[in-house]
Amino acid sequence: MNQSSCQVIVTAFVCGTPAAGEHGHTSGLSSINTTPAITPNRVPTRTSYLDMEHLTDFCRRFWCPTKNPNVRISLPVVCFVWQIAMIILFGLFVRYNEEADAHWSQHMHKNNITSHIENDFYFRYPSFQDVHVMIFVGFGFLMTFLKRYSFGGVGFSFLIAAFGIQWALLMQGWFHSLDPADGAIKIGIESLINADFCVAGCLIAYGALLGKVSPVQLMVLTLFGITLFAVEEYIILELLHVRDAGGSMVIHTFGAYYGLTISWILYRPKLKLSSSLNGSVYHSDVFAMIGTLFLWMFWPSFNSAISDHGDGQHRAAINTYLALASSVLTTFAISSLSAKKGKLDMVHIQNATLAGGVAMGTAAEFMITPYGSLIVGFCCGILSTFGYLVLTPLMEKYLKIQDTCGIHNLHAMPGVLGGVVGALTAATASESVYGSEGLINTFDFKGKYVNRTPATQGGYQAAGICVALAFGIVGGIIVGCILRLPIWADPSDDNCFNDEVYWEVPDEEESIPAMLEYKNHNTGKEMSEMSYTVEQS
Amino acid sequence: MNQSSCQVIVTAFVCGTPAAGEHGHTSGLSSINTTPAITPNRVPTRTSYLDMEHLTDFCRRFWCPTKNPNVRISLPVVCFVWQIAMIILFGLFVRYNEEADAHWSQHMHKNNITSHIENDFYFRYPSFQDVHVMIFVGFGFLMTFLKRYSFGGVGFSFLIAAFGIQWALLMQGWFHSLDPADGAIKIGIESLINADFCVAGCLIAYGALLGKVSPVQLMVLTLFGITLFAVEEYIILELLHVRDAGGSMVIHTFGAYYGLTISWILYRPKLKLSSSLNGSVYHSDVFAMIGTLFLWMFWPSFNSAISDHGDGQHRAAINTYLALASSVLTTFAISSLSAKKGKLDMVHIQNATLAGGVAMGTAAEFMITPYGSLIVGFCCGILSTFGYLVLTPLMEKYLKIQDTCGIHNLHAMPGVLGGVVGALTAATASESVYGSEGLINTFDFKGKYVNRTPATQGGYQAAGICVALAFGIVGGIIVGCILRLPIWADPSDDNCFNDEVYWEVPDEEESIPAMLEYKNHNTGKEMSEMSYTVEQS
Amino acid sequence: MNQSSCQVIVTAFVCGTPAAGEHGHTSGLSSINTTPAITPNRVPTRTSYLDMEHLTDFCRRFWCPTKNPNVRISLPVVCFVWQIAMIILFGLFVRYNEEADAHWSQHMHKNNITSHIENDFYFRYPSFQDVHVMIFVGFGFLMTFLKRYSFGGVGFSFLIAAFGIQWALLMQGWFHSLDPADGAIKIGIESLINADFCVAGCLIAYGALLGKVSPVQLMVLTLFGITLFAVEEYIILELLHVRDAGGSMVIHTFGAYYGLTISWILYRPKLKLSSSLNGSVYHSDVFAMIGTLFLWMFWPSFNSAISDHGDGQHRAAINTYLALASSVLTTFAISSLSAKKGKLDMVHIQNATLAGGVAMGTAAEFMITPYGSLIVGFCCGILSTFGYLVLTPLMEKYLKIQDTCGIHNLHAMPGVLGGVVGALTAATASESVYGSEGLINTFDFKGKYVNRTPATQGGYQAAGICVALAFGIVGGIIVGCILRLPIWADPSDDNCFNDEVYWEVPDEEESIPAMLEYKNHNTGKEMSEMSYTVEQS
Repeated sequence: MNQSSCQVIVTAFVCGTPAAGEHGHTSGLSSINTTPAITPNRVPTRTSYLDMEHLTDFCRRFWCPTKNPNVRISLPVVCFVWQIAMIILFGLFVRYNEEADAHWSQHMHKNNITSHIENDFYFRYPSFQDVHVMIFVGFGFLMTFLKRYSFGGVGFSFLIAAFGIQWALLMQGWFHSLDPADGAIKIGIESLINADFCVAGCLIAYGALLGKVSPVQLMVLTLFGITLFAVEEYIILELLHVRDAGGSMVIHTFGAYYGLTISWILYRPKLKLSSSLNGSVYHSDVFAMIGTLFLWMFWPSFNSAISDHGDGQHRAAINTYLALASSVLTTFAISSLSAKKGKLDMVHIQNATLAGGVAMGTAAEFMITPYGSLIVGFCCGILSTFGYLVLTPLMEKYLKIQDTCGIHNLHAMPGVLGGVVGALTAATASESVYGSEGLINTFDFKGKYVNRTPATQGGYQAAGICVALAFGIVGGIIVGCILRLPIWADPSDDNCFNDEVYWEVPDEEESIPAMLEYKNHNTGKEMSEMSYTVEQS
Repeated sequence: MNQSSCQVIVTAFVCGTPAAGEHGHTSGLSSINTTPAITPNRVPTRTSYLDMEHLTDFCRRFWCPTKNPNVRISLPVVCFVWQIAMIILFGLFVRYNEEADAHWSQHMHKNNITSHIENDFYFRYPSFQDVHVMIFVGFGFLMTFLKRYSFGGVGFSFLIAAFGIQWALLMQGWFHSLDPADGAIKIGIESLINADFCVAGCLIAYGALLGKVSPVQLMVLTLFGITLFAVEEYIILELLHVRDAGGSMVIHTFGAYYGLTISWILYRPKLKLSSSLNGSVYHSDVFAMIGTLFLWMFWPSFNSAISDHGDGQHRAAINTYLALASSVLTTFAISSLSAKKGKLDMVHIQNATLAGGVAMGTAAEFMITPYGSLIVGFCCGILSTFGYLVLTPLMEKYLKIQDTCGIHNLHAMPGVLGGVVGALTAATASESVYGSEGLINTFDFKGKYVNRTPATQGGYQAAGICVALAFGIVGGIIVGCILRLPIWADPSDDNCFNDEVYWEVPDEEESIPAMLEYKNHNTGKEMSEMSYTVEQS
Repeated sequence: MNQSSCQVIVTAFVCGTPAAGEHGHTSGLSSINTTPAITPNRVPTRTSYLDMEHLTDFCRRFWCPTKNPNVRISLPVVCFVWQIAMIILFGLFVRYNEEADAHWSQHMHKNNITSHIENDFYFRYPSFQDVHVMIFVGFGFLMTFLKRYSFGGVGFSFLIAAFGIQWALLMQGWFHSLDPADGAIKIGIESLINADFCVAGCLIAYGALLGKVSPVQLMVLTLFGITLFAVEEYIILELLHVRDAGGSMVIHTFGAYYGLTISWILYRPKLKLSSSLNGSVYHSDVFAMIGTLFLWMFWPSFNSAISDHGDGQHRAAINTYLALASSVLTTFAISSLSAKKGKLDMVHIQNATLAGGVAMGTAAEFMITPYGSLIVGFCCGILSTFGYLVLTPLMEKYLKIQDTCGIHNLHAMPGVLGGVVGALTAATASESVYGSEGLINTFDFKGKYVNRTPATQGGYQAAGICVALAFGIVGGIIVGCILRLPIWADPSDDNCFNDEVYWEVPDEEESIPAMLEYKNHNTGKEMSEMSYTVEQS
């Protein structure tokens, strides 16, 4: 039982020693089709023993039962109940903000706004739609790379993102935009972007668990993930007054460690039983490139979506654009260098090319300079590809962390690096570079932060990384333990990475022979009249 | 002959009783390759009979001949002639409006416009491009789900959309933006959006007919569809002064009933002969998800693209975003609940998740409140998935409506529901919610409509639904009868859903063996030198 | 040796007559796996000859060695060294412009700018992102059409575009936006768009070479291509003061002839050895349609991205939209007309439908009128499809130009046509059509060009076509000769269009049998308990 110490304690208690027996020939039984059956080695053969054994046995059955991945009751219940809860909470709390409300024209008169173009909608809507594409097509299609888990990759990320944005609007609203006048959350275009950001954290976490969890578990992961995210974000952005427009810390570091910790808790020692499905086929790799490219192209929008109007958004887009370009080249270089014949690996191209965008999340709106952005991207491409080559196998072997998409390489390391780069860039900011007004605007040294210096800001930025890490790991442990409960209909170890568990999968490629057969069957006698093969082309 | 009463009358007249004989073994003959041949049971065996039989026979041959789906003459002729007609009509009628014309700077001086940013281009161009993506990639890829009709799904929607937008610019121009000064249609960015909207109606109709019609029939469907659309839109938006920015009535209700009625007229009793191709394969379902996601993500742009500058566009985007999120959860819930083992069905995920956007088409720009939007999406997800599970099979069995993509569930029902929601929201509007100015702006109670009350407006909105329904059904009957003419080169019943009828389809999967064979053939003697299999990996 | 005269001279010198022997049975040896081996017919059998033979032999070995497409050293070296060079050069030269710099708020005060919305970011960012999608998803996926070169198509265009945009920012900066005050290149959103444009030229050239070159060759092609582009663009746009916002001449004509000339120099007489892979499969054609549609939809953004604020951008978008719609219809018409049974060819639909956008590159911002745009699209669809049908085979046979993607039909001919249309439209411009102010703004008759007339402008426009052609052809010859050096690890003639040369390609379709086998193996004895086939569906 190669399990880390903590896990050994937990599982030894709940599963007892017979768990070791599961390595045996019974694993084949835990197929997707078996109803909870009492298999030979699970029936206690010695019936007259002490009570402790019965208790242990009960615990083991409760905690480690034969897997039954039927979500027919649980998934609909979760979806319905939570959606109804959303409707009630939205009814109680959520209203349009003054830029989306029909009183906007009165608001314009009152504030001497002369043109509708000053509505924040026109500043942020194009970026919002780019971010939206990243969340649904970008993350969704990036996860289609497995040969038989494309439905789950794109479908479940669709489900949890659709739930997550609603819950995020509430959670972020309570923490950030509660109107003291009427106790209502006022939403506008920026709220939608923030909700998408919040969901990104959960989708990153899903990357580590891809193929190994049920949709119900994903819903639970999202519910807690969004909640933790909102608290963490409140502490980092509001209490510590840290700048993190693109979320290197808030989104990527938190999301990645949250997912990795959960994956560690949910460690599956026999996952190699599914290894035949844990890989790609030619076309699934091309599908994944759709996700990669939309993430890559729109990352400048991601990092600039909620930064300051004017130069802030402009600069964030430029810096991210450059960092991304730079990490593509180093990714190709390391990928080629590492293979026997210099052959490139699609896994690296699909993922590590994006690391530059992750690492620019904090510093994108700062005056990091164009060549600074290139340097960040340069390092991230190397770091991330190196992670895929070396760290992911090591982490699975020694740390018992099974990371399907390699989010440690794409989000965790570049995210932390991005936080560090942001802290350094902030600490070294000066009036000569930013101008006095620019410095105040960029770091928002206003109100009660009017006396904060760049050096102090750098310290707070560094503290932000720690908060994100702590929330990710501690939150991941708690949620991981909840997800170990044997009630979530997760697949058995030999049925991971398999869409047939949760989806009606069409028969593959039988189509053509079936069609021909049909034709032959019906027209067999007049085959000569048809000259099918000759005239078909 | 399981046919609805109306069809029985029509077909009995034109096809005569021998049509029943087509159920027999001759169906195999009507393959794509047969030239109009005289098959045994079609030659009258008794030659000396009364004239009536000859007439019937002539009619039957004329109306129900052996299918010959060769479009080599008809398609080029239609494309060329219609495109030349477009050029002539554009030459006579279409000019740039004042915001796209080189006189724009004079227009700025005259109207005290101080910045180019006030050009409507900057208000609407991002939304336009999102709508454009929905039309071409969204609808196009949503229709690639069939295993062997992906070329036709994406290719023919490309063709008819490209023709449709030109014809729509003319038709909508004549009805909406004819400049009385010079009799010219003045087009700008809003015209392009409206043209895309207009085409959406025809693409929805195509959804019902997917795989069963020829490209020439689709061009005819589009020509008449756009024409009907423009008249219907003129009646609803101008004469009745109804608000319908996202087109729940104007686009979805009309388009869906137009397509369904045509499908009813073109009923194919022997369509089950093609049933082996009327389904998806694994990768075609993933392709269809590209369409689904781009439609889903950009639907907020669709519903806000032509609503009022400022709060109107802002609110429409928020409401649509929320309704869509809500319908995803209920779709997953019903889909899982309906399957024996709780397995999700890709057909539902690909379609019913979009129903929330359809149903918000009318009310999106109103003050429906965020939780109101969630409720609408909640109901639509259930309604639409339920439709796929129950109504589509029933409609095919009892109403003789073969609806390939299930547009009744995705567009017809949610469209009508959206119209009703819009009418109710309008009828209950009040100054306390909208503000006096907001109420006037939102419902455009200006000019000769200055005295209209919200309650009256609600009544007119309801009338709009009826107009859309009437145009869809009556228009569909007329166009359906035209499309029954035996001159359109549609496929035979056993060749539906098959790209080989209208496309050069590449040989599938022979590539790899062919390559290996080739290599072996050429280098057979030196096979040891190559060590192909060993070093290849 | 069917080679054009010039090539004969070059290759005769460097390869000697034994090259003819390569037609023989040894071709199988030049597989991807052979290390530089001394094969029988390359060892001089007669050892005592004059020195000249040794020299010839040395030359032949040097210039025409057995191919070894291992890029393990060369690709990483090129990527690292060039990326480091980029960082150094960016450090020396590149800074933010005043709209992206933190001094923007001071700039606003100084220039009486009252709103952040006046920042060029808000005028151009949506268009920039559309162009970005065209470069990476559009061109990338358009090149996935080959059955076994999808990785190379989308992956290598990703690589060269990521490098190209950096080098283009430098090259274009030196020529266009060098700040005389401090010798720095000031970049902003318009620079990013121009860099994407510049890369488009190289991606077009890649289209002709798809599947036949190594990634290292592509990097070299990009390095020189961007350099040539920047000089050519400087001559055309600055020295000749020609208008070419969408780059019919600057991008398409140059890029296409650059690529075609290189392809001519790199002519592979035995390319038919790879012909089994030089085609598509069903799903690869659908992937390519993703590229086609994103190019098609966003082409209005491409042509309007850097045209004048206000009416210029507005008009460019409308004209391009119309030209594209028109060329779709004529493409379908000619494609159907040319096939025996009227069947459409995906190659035409994927490519020729875009020709209208190429041809509107110059004239889009002019007052070409809507029907003028339709006429241009009409002609281009015909011309381009005709090119695929007739010219591409002829060019390969007689001119020895192997043009994988048919860029001659999609970019070269429509590009030149676009230049001609632009020249004619400019020459016939008048104050009555444009207004006096509009004429000056549209053609930028300001500063030292204040006295230029439309007629003169037309002449300069025509001169621009010649400059673009000259740069493409002369540059292509030089770069082609460089790429013939035997150091670039290009694939052998029988290994073209094959991803296995440069990529780790996953095993295809073994997944399903492997999985079933595994299941059967493990649970063979209890097969009846599983009832696998029955319950699976």
